[in-house]
Amino acid sequence: MKQAKVSNNVIRRLPRYLRKLDELKAAGVDRISSGELGRQMGLTSSQIRQDFSCFGEFGQQGYGYNVTGLRAEIASILGMNRDFSVILVGVGNIGRAMIENFCFEQYGFHLIAAYDVRPEVVGTDISGIRIHDISELHHVFETSKVDMAVLSVPKHIANQVARDLVDHGVKAIWNFTNVELNVSENEVIVENIHFSDSLLALGYYLSERIDAEANAAAKNAK
Amino acid sequence: MKQAKVSNNVIRRLPRYLRKLDELKAAGVDRISSGELGRQMGLTSSQIRQDFSCFGEFGQQGYGYNVTGLRAEIASILGMNRDFSVILVGVGNIGRAMIENFCFEQYGFHLIAAYDVRPEVVGTDISGIRIHDISELHHVFETSKVDMAVLSVPKHIANQVARDLVDHGVKAIWNFTNVELNVSENEVIVENIHFSDSLLALGYYLSERIDAEANAAAKNAK
Repeated sequence: MKQAKVSNNVIRRLPRYLRKLDELKAAGVDRISSGELGRQMGLTSSQIRQDFSCFGEFGQQGYGYNVTGLRAEIASILGMNRDFSVILVGVGNIGRAMIENFCFEQYGFHLIAAYDVRPEVVGTDISGIRIHDISELHHVFETSKVDMAVLSVPKHIANQVARDLVDHGVKAIWNFTNVELNVSENEVIVENIHFSDSLLALGYYLSERIDAEANAAAKNAK
Repeated sequence: MKQAKVSNNVIRRLPRYLRKLDELKAAGVDRISSGELGRQMGLTSSQIRQDFSCFGEFGQQGYGYNVTGLRAEIASILGMNRDFSVILVGVGNIGRAMIENFCFEQYGFHLIAAYDVRPEVVGTDISGIRIHDISELHHVFETSKVDMAVLSVPKHIANQVARDLVDHGVKAIWNFTNVELNVSENEVIVENIHFSDSLLALGYYLSERIDAEANAAAKNAK
């Protein structure tokens, strides 16, 4: 039932639905109406019905959504059952944090190897993942399918490593470098982690709150 | 000219506008029409005019936007000139990466101190930031205004530390713990870094591309 082109906004909401449904499941909720789901997520019920209608019919009139069933549908749409293969390039602080703490498996991704250039980390294992020298990168592409690479190298080599990965045939790059990569979307999917976008949104809300408090204080002082 | 309530979607687009305008400035572009800006960002020109109309009138009919001027307006709306004070709690891999590599100043935030419990890091300096014992947290609130805390502690203490921070009067938490914090939005602004949302969206686009390639291959084989 999947339609040809679903808007990016809808796709970006799917992980939020997934988190909410996991929360509902954990709280023992079996079914939920679009109205109640919307209330809990700050969306309208018609928005929710419209989002899901992009992929088929998941709810039942007058019954609402089966939480477990809807969760399974969304997980499948997100490819969580596809067991994507992942390598990680750049085992600095962020790279190490992702290897040690991020549960790739939970989201349908399987981390198979990591790469760096520093002699003190090459040849070691972190949480069961072997760190190879970057010069050995081609081996993994010869012996495995590599769907995605986590890019967590220093800024100044980000584009060069990204180019290598694309030339080796990686399909997607999860980019932690804060560098806009010079690769075309026809050759590779790039998903950027923009810490700064998140911080700037926080700055907006913080400014708004500080101004509101100052205004309230000024009114009280009168 | 700022209006009372601007939708979250508009606010989330502001950092993207900022990045695009920085890119245009770096490329020597002085002015740009809403149509061209939209084309480069995958938005319609009417969407762009509508977004900016939430905050006033930035463009001129038939002239377009002055890149430097619009950039300054957006920076101001995002509070980038407010010099917010920041502390960071939890100097593990992620915390250390943020201290060493993230340019808080660039976005109007000023990191003043960091906290941890491990004897091997407490008392040391990382990139000029002193790491204090978490038991000394109250001192910073007595001597400074603390607008925001970066929360990068282990999951199992995330809620306890968040509660401490709120009780001390922090106004916002930038949450890297992947834990939904049990704090109310009336008492504190929480901005979550959801690595998983980003990865799941990547998984969607990757699935779509793999399916498209498989379909194309199947057609060619016929």
